[in-house]
This record gives sequence, structure tokens and C-alpha cells, in this order.
Amino acid sequence: MLTGKRVLIVGGDARQLTIARTLVERDAAVCLAGYENLHAPLPGTRLVDLAPETLAGFDAVIFPAKGIGEDGAVESLFSPKPLLLREAHFRALRGAVLYTGIAGPYLREQAMKFGLPLVVLFDRDDVAILNAVPTAEGAIMFAIQHTDITLHGSDAAVIGFGRVGMTLAPRLRALGARVRVFARQPEALARAYEMGLEPLDLGALRSEIRPVDLVFNTVPAPILTADVLAEMKPSAFILDLASAPGGTDFLFAEKRGIRALLAPSLPGLVAPKTAGKILADVLTRLIAAQKP
Amino acid sequence: MLTGKRVLIVGGDARQLTIARTLVERDAAVCLAGYENLHAPLPGTRLVDLAPETLAGFDAVIFPAKGIGEDGAVESLFSPKPLLLREAHFRALRGAVLYTGIAGPYLREQAMKFGLPLVVLFDRDDVAILNAVPTAEGAIMFAIQHTDITLHGSDAAVIGFGRVGMTLAPRLRALGARVRVFARQPEALARAYEMGLEPLDLGALRSEIRPVDLVFNTVPAPILTADVLAEMKPSAFILDLASAPGGTDFLFAEKRGIRALLAPSLPGLVAPKTAGKILADVLTRLIAAQKP
Amino acid sequence: MLTGKRVLIVGGDARQLTIARTLVERDAAVCLAGYENLHAPLPGTRLVDLAPETLAGFDAVIFPAKGIGEDGAVESLFSPKPLLLREAHFRALRGAVLYTGIAGPYLREQAMKFGLPLVVLFDRDDVAILNAVPTAEGAIMFAIQHTDITLHGSDAAVIGFGRVGMTLAPRLRALGARVRVFARQPEALARAYEMGLEPLDLGALRSEIRPVDLVFNTVPAPILTADVLAEMKPSAFILDLASAPGGTDFLFAEKRGIRALLAPSLPGLVAPKTAGKILADVLTRLIAAQKP
Amino acid sequence: MLTGKRVLIVGGDARQLTIARTLVERDAAVCLAGYENLHAPLPGTRLVDLAPETLAGFDAVIFPAKGIGEDGAVESLFSPKPLLLREAHFRALRGAVLYTGIAGPYLREQAMKFGLPLVVLFDRDDVAILNAVPTAEGAIMFAIQHTDITLHGSDAAVIGFGRVGMTLAPRLRALGARVRVFARQPEALARAYEMGLEPLDLGALRSEIRPVDLVFNTVPAPILTADVLAEMKPSAFILDLASAPGGTDFLFAEKRGIRALLAPSLPGLVAPKTAGKILADVLTRLIAAQKP
Ligand SMILES: NC(=O)c1ccc[n+]([C@@H]2O[C@H](COP(=O)([O-])OP(=O)(O)OC[C@H]3O[C@@H](n4cnc5c(N)ncnc54)[C@H](OP(=O)(O)O)[C@@H]3O)[C@@H](O)[C@H]2O)c1
Ligand SMILES: NC(=O)c1ccc[n+]([C@@H]2O[C@H](COP(=O)([O-])OP(=O)(O)OC[C@H]3O[C@@H](n4cnc5c(N)ncnc54)[C@H](OP(=O)(O)O)[C@@H]3O)[C@@H](O)[C@H]2O)c1
Ligand SMILES: NC(=O)c1ccc[n+]([C@@H]2O[C@H](COP(=O)([O-])OP(=O)(O)OC[C@H]3O[C@@H](n4cnc5c(N)ncnc54)[C@H](OP(=O)(O)O)[C@@H]3O)[C@@H](O)[C@H]2O)c1
Ligand SMILES: NC(=O)c1ccc[n+]([C@@H]2O[C@H](COP(=O)([O-])OP(=O)(O)OC[C@H]3O[C@@H](n4cnc5c(N)ncnc54)[C@H](OP(=O)(O)O)[C@@H]3O)[C@@H](O)[C@H]2O)c1
Repeated sequence: MLTGKRVLIVGGDARQLTIARTLVERDAAVCLAGYENLHAPLPGTRLVDLAPETLAGFDAVIFPAKGIGEDGAVESLFSPKPLLLREAHFRALRGAVLYTGIAGPYLREQAMKFGLPLVVLFDRDDVAILNAVPTAEGAIMFAIQHTDITLHGSDAAVIGFGRVGMTLAPRLRALGARVRVFARQPEALARAYEMGLEPLDLGALRSEIRPVDLVFNTVPAPILTADVLAEMKPSAFILDLASAPGGTDFLFAEKRGIRALLAPSLPGLVAPKTAGKILADVLTRLIAAQKP
Repeated sequence: MLTGKRVLIVGGDARQLTIARTLVERDAAVCLAGYENLHAPLPGTRLVDLAPETLAGFDAVIFPAKGIGEDGAVESLFSPKPLLLREAHFRALRGAVLYTGIAGPYLREQAMKFGLPLVVLFDRDDVAILNAVPTAEGAIMFAIQHTDITLHGSDAAVIGFGRVGMTLAPRLRALGARVRVFARQPEALARAYEMGLEPLDLGALRSEIRPVDLVFNTVPAPILTADVLAEMKPSAFILDLASAPGGTDFLFAEKRGIRALLAPSLPGLVAPKTAGKILADVLTRLIAAQKP
Repeated sequence: MLTGKRVLIVGGDARQLTIARTLVERDAAVCLAGYENLHAPLPGTRLVDLAPETLAGFDAVIFPAKGIGEDGAVESLFSPKPLLLREAHFRALRGAVLYTGIAGPYLREQAMKFGLPLVVLFDRDDVAILNAVPTAEGAIMFAIQHTDITLHGSDAAVIGFGRVGMTLAPRLRALGARVRVFARQPEALARAYEMGLEPLDLGALRSEIRPVDLVFNTVPAPILTADVLAEMKPSAFILDLASAPGGTDFLFAEKRGIRALLAPSLPGLVAPKTAGKILADVLTRLIAAQKP
Repeated sequence: MLTGKRVLIVGGDARQLTIARTLVERDAAVCLAGYENLHAPLPGTRLVDLAPETLAGFDAVIFPAKGIGEDGAVESLFSPKPLLLREAHFRALRGAVLYTGIAGPYLREQAMKFGLPLVVLFDRDDVAILNAVPTAEGAIMFAIQHTDITLHGSDAAVIGFGRVGMTLAPRLRALGARVRVFARQPEALARAYEMGLEPLDLGALRSEIRPVDLVFNTVPAPILTADVLAEMKPSAFILDLASAPGGTDFLFAEKRGIRALLAPSLPGLVAPKTAGKILADVLTRLIAAQKP
């Protein structure tokens, strides 16, 4: 279904291998830049240098999940050499669609400058929902590991009921926790209630947090502030899933003796293969749908 | 929390009684129009005539869930007399907020004309989600009643994954059905997958419907058309939950010997008390938040 | 897999048709007694008279789910004539294994007298567990139908945590009820707790029943006695699933205005096809395992 | 509720602290032997020497979860000195009931010799079921940690459907795995089927294991033998929960490149506090029920 599509994968980690394999299976012509150190060649792919003159003619370029640096540096798990993408490279990519997990200013700027369509995969709702599954499993793993009680019978709180919160909360309940969901939208609270969770207005966090053993934060804003932490049990455990710097006042938590952990990038950590497959599937669909 | 608020309830059914009781409990002053036949007076409420001159000074007016007729007629389960609301009535209501389940052109027009804020409760996401619970339970009841197999072990399909579909589908799975979800948005399919359901593109309905024993339609558009029905087992059962006329070609279904049922207004049918409470709770919140 | 097995089906209801079809599919030679009124012949079966001289040579005889009467009468949905099984019939069955749903004294006596192995299917744990599924679905259907509230958000109690209780209770929870389980064995209470239900000692029934909206009784003994009923809300609803006469003091319940329903034979009522399949599958396994 | 009961706790680990605290709360007089190194005294308890002359008059003696050694040695996390229990000690305990997690020959022999009732807590069904919860959570944690895929969407197998298997399998399904249950009893298979799991006869393990990604063994017998392992994917992961030496041919698994892990004592590892509470609760009930 990708017959005739030319795809370049630049840098990345284990997820890229799954992506490359999937695209090859679906008959794309796949080139890899920054993969000199691969143990064994990936059948059906070809290694290329990252020189502007080799970059013409691609239909799609796939950057690492975390995007590229502000100086154009691309990290690769499989290359000792730094990969650098300059204006000349982007100019040569004319005609290609760029795919990345997240996008910083530099990448956005270059794409804009050369009129290259830029698809930010983690901004897509479907990708974010699918990624929420390994995220939730990672959160469960950490919660089991870092506490001396079972999730079953525990008092848990999930803060935020977006893509991650809605994925995590029912899993905690299925494992036997009593789950409070703190959110600010009436429809999020209604959905939480429908799912058998206990909906609570985010505004009531401070007054309702007291009995909670386990807090999972998904809100990327200062939420577990000193005044909230002051109400919590010292034996409570906080797992902050929100993007750095998280929503927790970690210093104050430490002062109060409350263990709090920022846990970024769980999908790549606990399920790189699944995380790669999620990206591979959506990339297949998107590249197949590109106009020739 | 509703101290000082004056509320008028005009017509309605059993749900209105729950609403009235709840508002009284929360200290509103509640008047009822069209309630002459109540078996016993509702403590704390006062019966009023629907004359324009009695309608001044209310903060909120609550119409029946189904709204009012195009001629201004308001149905009441508790009155033998027809209730009629003319322009004069609406003019007298100046200063009040109007609340209704659904709103037809006449009500919208009158509200507009006299500058009365109109809140259409069933358009609210939170109300629709909460109402999806009795809807789903009604659907489950009908499915058990009208088939000779158990939901457990059955092949089910839920078409549409909005407020109702997302509520019904996981319940069917919890009861042991194998549940396919047909939807058209990638994020709906991703969410269905996350929930352990089988996501299928709505476009594949015709080719994937063959093994299905039970179809639950929630899409208010022609979906179960002749060409789809032609692929279904004659022993299949269709429950169409979408608003009238549903999404099923009922004539063709009958011709093929497939049982198909349009099941409107399930919340009022299977759980009037809960349905009333859902409205009462949101009305309390909304009226409390009205500026004085 | 039943090649060469000769099976006689005597009387019964819709479930027997599923049994007959399944056994034929698996290559048994199937004879039917008491099926003159079948609309259409069942392919692969043969109708026989119930005369002693036609009864020799069968490997297996299948009686109705409810067994046979004390006078040897066998009910059949498909025959106008009474079927009578006397000693002469049983004598002629020498060599056959008898299968029945439940067994009264007469059947047990005859089997004993002529040395015929008697398999009481509903006494088998596996059959009872599988039958508990349609039973639970029937209970859920009745509960939705007979109350004005949703199961979701309701306070439910399941009394007894055997084959039916353990099947019903988690389904109620999955639908959003708060489920108390009353049982007397510590291991039943432990299992209920593990499953996310609230375990309560049966001895505490009287003191803990007060908030309950929905009671499902599975204990075939006087459990919902006057002193317990006296503590219940008048708005509560009791569904008694235990074998007749149930565990409820129905007269006292009525006096208190509590609705109480005895609901026997749910599998045959709500899912005759599934119920037939459950029996057909276990009969296939058992007949296949009979020594020739 | 334990007023007047004299309880001696001999050796143990963190779980004993929870037990001691709970018994004190419930008004027992609690003595501790082998607790010299406690950071802080446990309020309400008294430290005692393990001399025969101090052992008279106890109603209950609580040994560590793992019991005592064959030479009478009792391990304690809180004592540098070896604790030794000889015949003289047991003789002095006349009148007491002995409680232990598991019991070896020496403890059984001494109890028998001096007519001391011996309660083996982990042999009790209720304790085993409650302990199955932290066991299942530990298994889930290991499975998330040791694989590069999510449980969601994985092909899992649970072997054995006793106290642990029945606790673990539905949790895996709730997390989105497809769960096969291998067991040998028809009623276990029926229960698995009712729970929405895929029941398979243990005899079919070899032929059905091929697609499985994750195997959880709970059968304490040679089950994952070379011929079964030979059918498995090299990428599969085996978590063996059965008591040592487990049911896996670990050497052969290694040879085939299949990762296999024996994971004993999970409750104490992942949830010592909950594990202690489980014991504390049952001990409270049992000691309270002892005749004076
Ligand atoms: N740790 C990991 O491995 C991992 C994996 C995936 C995602 N993440 C991170 O986790 C976070 C949540 O991701 P998501 O996909 O669930 O996002 P999402 O769908 O946008 O959900 C975010 C939730 O937080 C709420 N929220 C946002 N800003 C808020 C504010 N200022 N005050 C109150 N509530 C606020 C949102 O409520 P409204 O709807 O009212 O805005 C929503 O409920 C993000 O920071 C994301 O980067 C981490
Ligand atoms: N029977 C009852 O008692 C009862 C109770 C409540 C509601 N209802 C009715 O049930 C229906 C669903 O209600 P809801 O609250 O779930 O609505 P909703 O949240 O809007 O969901 C509707 C679903 O149908 C899909 N859909 C709508 N139009 C479509 C079209 N033309 N083609 C394909 N898909 C389409 C939507 O997909 P997109 O997101 O892609 O648009 C969405 O998945 C409505 O008709 C409502 O009136 C009936
Ligand atoms: N309505 C229907 O369609 C339908 C369908 C199937 C079954 N049934 C009936 O439902 C009832 C339950 O069936 P089942 O298969 O679940 O039976 P079961 O497995 O034997 O369970 C019965 C439960 O009741 C408890 N119990 C029995 N006698 C008791 C007593 N005297 N006092 C306290 N508790 C007692 C048992 O506890 P212990 O373990 O402590 O004894 C167990 O928890 C039976 O009467 C059966 O005939 C009805
Ligand atoms: N890793 C840990 O932290 C942890 C924690 C708790 C328990 N355990 C261990 O896990 C194992 C299971 O515990 P449990 O409480 O679930 O035990 P259980 O209730 O006795 O269940 C054992 C299961 O294995 C089956 N089984 C036993 N022997 C068998 C054999 N020879 N062949 C085939 N099937 C056999 C049983 O089937 P039948 O019913 O047919 O016999 C049953 O399904 C035990 O070894 C226990 O010591 C470990």
C-alpha cells in the first residue's frame, strides 16, 4: 500500500526500527540516515549519508519522536556521529512531507521557510490516545513498585481527564483502587462518573486530597502546589506524568516527606516496540494518503 | 444554595417531580403550572395558573424535556387542560432564563424575540453523557429481552462512538460480548481500541457486519441501508437508538426478516427517577450560577 | 466425534432443538420422542414412538431440563399427547446413560432399579456456572425493567456468592452499581473483596441492608425474613433467584410495600438458544467420553 | 475486641510490624521476641527474651510468614541474634495456639508433640485469595517491566486457575490483553469463560501456546517443559509464579532464548504493608474466636 513511496528516516531510537520494518513490509522504499552502528542491516532498507545532495526526491521524512534540536542536531541511538540538519538540507527536501513526534521552533521555522508540510504526530488526538496506553501501563508499574500497598484497596486520584487521564483512571479502578478524578470541565466529570469513577471539581483538590494514597497528575500546570501538598498524607506517593517540569512542587513535597516522581517518556521506556508500532501504523496511513 | 431563586415549572412528566423536589430541598421558591391532578401536593411548591400576569418575577422557567409544541402547547402528565404559551406569556417572563430539554423553532423564536436566555439541556455534553447511562441500560434490557442468546459470547456492533456509543460499548463488553465499534474519526477509533473494543472504520460496515448478532445504532443518519442489511444474518437483531427516524431502513429489514426496533426516549422509560435527577442536578448548578 | 452413538431425546422445549441439531452435526444418530408437532422435520433426526420395544440399543437418553414427573410423565412442547415412561420403558433402556437437568425421586428410583447411570446436568459445577450467565443477564433485565432508577449509581446487594452470585455481582459492578456481597464463607468474602465488591458477613444482613435499592437473592433458604425486610427501604426492589419458594417472605414484603419478584428459570426464558447450546456442548463431551 | 488476649510475636519482617500494631489497636497484650533492633519502640508492645520460662500464659504465638527452620531457628529482620526454639520452648507454650504462614516438618512435629493447635495461614483459602492480589500486582509489574510491548493488545496465557490464576487473569484482560486460561477442571474452564477469558484445556497447551507473548504460570508442577517451550515464540516472556522450583524448564528456555523468570514471594516484595494487613486481619478474627 506504500508502493512507490520514498521515505527517509533520520535518527531516532528503537521505535524507528519498528517504523522502518513496517514501512518496508508495506512496500515503501526506505532510507536510513544515522544508522551506521546497527548490529545487522535492516532488510529492505538502505543507509544514506545526510548530505543535501542525497535528500532530493523523498516523499516523506521521519524525524525522531522528540524532534530535532534548536541547532538542527538530530539524535540517533545508532550513530556515533552528530547528525546536523541545516537550511541546505531542508531546501533539498522540497516535495517531502516532514513527520516528527514533537516540534520545536527550529523545525517549525525551517518547514515554514521551505513550504514543507510538517505533521506533528504527538499533537494528533489518535496518536496521543494510543500512546496513553503505554503511559498508563508505565504509571501502573511505577505505582506498584514504589509503594508498600496494593493498588487494590488504595485511595487513588487522577488529576486531569484528557487523553492520559481517561486511559489511566479506569485501569486503576479495574485493579481495585478507589479512583477520584479531578477535572474542570463538566463533560469530563460526567464521563468520569459514567465510567464508575468519582468525579470531583479540580477546585476541590485541596479539600478532597487528604485520604489519597496515590496521586497521578496529568495536568501540565502547577497543580500540586504547596497548599495542596500540605493537606496530603506524608505516606502518599505522587507520580507526575505531565510534561516537564510537571505539575508538582517537588521541593515542597520533599520537605514534607512526600515521595514524588516525575515520569516522562513512559511509552519509549516501558513499551518501545508498541510505541514504535503506534507511530508506524499512523505513518503508514498518512503517507499512503499523501497525494503523489 | 438556591435561596431567593424563584423557579417556575411548566408541564412535564415524572422527571419534573424529581426536579421540583430537588430545587425545593435546595431552598428555591418553586411554582408549578399544569399540575392540578397531582395525587398529593408537593411540599414546598405552589400551584399557579398560566396567566401572563402571574409570570413576572421568575428567575428561571423549566419546560418539559421534550420542549414545547410549535403552537405553544405544553404537555403535562398532571393536567387535563391544554397549556398554551403565547407571546404574552413570554413577554411577561422578561428577566427569566428558560430551560428546556430540546428546543423547536417556536421556543427559539420566542426566546430570541424577548431576549430571554434559552438553555437547551440535552445539547449540553455533560447532560448528554449522563443521559447516555440510562440509554445504555435500556438498550441492554431490550437486547436481553428480544434475543434468544446471551449478550455474553455474542457478536455485537455499536455504530457511532459519541456520547451514547462510548457509554454503551464498554458495558456490552463487560457483559461478555465481542464488541465492534464502527466510527469515522481516527480519535474515536483510537479510544475504542484503548477501551478493549474492536475499532472498525464506518466505511467497512458493509463488509464487516456479516458475523454480527446484535447491532446498536447511534448514528442519526441512514446507516443500516439496504446494501448493509443485505449482508446481515437474518437472525440478527437491530436496536436503533438514534433520534427518529433512526438510521435503519426498517422496511427492508422487515423484508429480509431481520428484527429491527427503534427505541426512543429510553431514559424516561427505564429510569425516570434517575433521568429527573440528572436534570435536577444540572439545573441546580445552572440556576445557582445565574447572576441575580 | 459422536459417530456411532445412538441418542434418544424424550420431550423438552426449544433447548432440545439446539441439542438435537448439535448432536446431529457431530454425527450422532438422533431419535426424537414427543416431537409430532414440529413445524418442519429436523434434518438428520428420526421420530420414534415411546413404546418399550423401540427403546433398546440407545447409548444415551436425554430428558427435559426439568426432568420427569413423579408419575413418569414427560412434558414436551412439541407434542399434544402425554408422554408416559413406566418401568417397562426403563427396563428396555438397559445399556443407556440417562441425562436430565434435574432429577426427582421417580427418575432416581427407576435409574437405580435398572442400573442405569443417571447424569444430573444442573448438579454439575460447569453447567451451573455456564447457566449462571443467562441467569445473571435475566436478573439484570428484570432489574432495569422494574425500577425507576439506573443500576449505575444504585446500591445493590447480592446475597450468596456461589455459581450465580459470583457471576451476577461483578456484572452489576461493571454497570456502575455499588455492590455488597453477603456470604457466610470467609473464602467467598475474600473472593468478593478481590473482585472489587464489598464483602459483608451474611450475619450482618439485617444491619447493613438499610441503604440498599436492589436486592438479588441467590440463597435457597429463608433469608429475606420479616426482620430483615423491616429494615429495608420501601422503595427497594427484591429479585429472588433462588429455587422455589425463594428466600423471601413475599407476604411480609407486600405488606411493607416492597416489591419482590421470584424469577425462576431465567436461562430458558431470556436465552433458550444459549441455554440449549450449553447443554448440547456438555452432552457432546459426556456422550463422547462414554465407554462403548 | 482482643481485650485480655496475650499474644507473642516471634521473629519476622515488616509484615509483623503491621500485625503488632493492629493487634495492639484491638486491645491485645502483645509481646515481641527478636525485636531488639527496632528503630523505635512499638507503642503498646513489650520486648521479651525467648527463654522457656517467659513463654507461659500466651493465648497465641505468631511465627514468621515463612515459618521456622528445621532446627528451630527463627529469622528476624530486627534481631542480630539467632532465635532458637527448642522442645523446652514448645512445652512452655502449652495452652497457646500457634500461627504461621507456612509450616515445615519440625514445627508440625513440635505442635503435635505438645498438643498445640497449629494454624497454617497460607493454607487457608481466604488468606491465599487475599494474598493473590499483591501477587497479581507484582506479576503485572514484572510483565510491564520486562517486555517491550504493552499488556494491552498482547496475547497472554495464564496457566492454572486457582486462587492466583483467577485473580490475575481478569486483571490482565482489564488491561487489554487477550487472555487464554489453561486449566484441567471443567468448572475452572467454565468460570474462565464466564469471566470473558478464553478457556483452554491444559492438555492443549503445546498446540495452543504458539501465538502467546506472555505466559504466567501458577501450576506448581512441570508444565512449561521442553516440548511446550519448543513451540513458543523466542520473543515470549515467561513469569513463573508457582512455588519453587516453579513449573518451567528454565535451562531449556534459556537455550531457546526465551526469557523466563521465577518470581517468588511477591506480596512481601511489592506490598509488605498490605500483606501484613491481610495477616493482621485474619489473625484478629481467629484470635478473637479462640475459646478462652
Ligand atoms: N509521562 C509520559 O510518558 C507522558 C505520555 C503522554 C503524555 N504526557 C504528558 O501528560 C500530559 C497530559 O497529556 P494528555 O495527552 O492527557 O493531554 P490532554 O488530553 O490535553 O489532557 C490534559 C488534561 O489536563 C487538563 N488541563 C490542562 N491544562 C490545565 C490547567 N491549566 N488547569 C487545569 N487543568 C488543565 C485538561 O483539562 P481541559 O480539557 O479542561 O483543558 C485535561 O484534562 C501532557 O503534559 C503530556 O505531555 C506524558
Ligand atoms: N434512544 C434514546 O433513548 C436516546 C438517548 C440519547 C440519545 N439518543 C440519540 O442517539 C443519537 C446519538 O446520541 P449521542 O449523544 O451519542 O450523539 P453524539 O455524541 O453526537 O454521537 C453521534 C455519533 O454518530 C456519528 N455520526 C453523526 N452523524 C454521522 C453521519 N452522518 N455519518 C457518520 N457518523 C455520524 C458521530 O460521529 P462524528 O463524531 O464523526 O460526527 C458520533 O460518533 C442521537 O440521535 C440522539 O438523539 C437517543
Ligand atoms: N432463577 C433462575 O433462573 C436460576 C438459575 C440458576 C440457579 N438458580 C437457583 O439459584 C440458587 C443459587 O444457585 P447457585 O448455582 O449459585 O448455587 P450455589 O453455587 O450452591 O450457591 C448458593 C449460595 O447460597 C449460599 N447458601 C446456601 N444455603 C445457605 C444457607 N442455608 N444459609 C446461607 N447461605 C446459604 C451458599 O453458601 P455456602 O457456600 O456457604 O453454602 C452459596 O453462596 C439455587 O437455588 C438455584 O436453584 C436459579
Ligand atoms: N509468586 C508468589 O509470590 C506466589 C504467591 C502466592 C502463591 N504462589 C504460588 O503459586 C502457586 C499457585 O497458588 P494458588 O494459591 O493459586 O494455588 P491453587 O489455588 O491451588 O491453584 C493451583 C492451580 O494449579 C493447578 N494444578 C495444581 N497442580 C497441578 C498439576 N499437577 N497439573 C495441572 N494443574 C495443576 C490447579 O488445578 P486443580 O484445581 O485442577 O488442582 C489450580 O488451577 C502455588 O505454587 C503457590 O505456592 C506464589
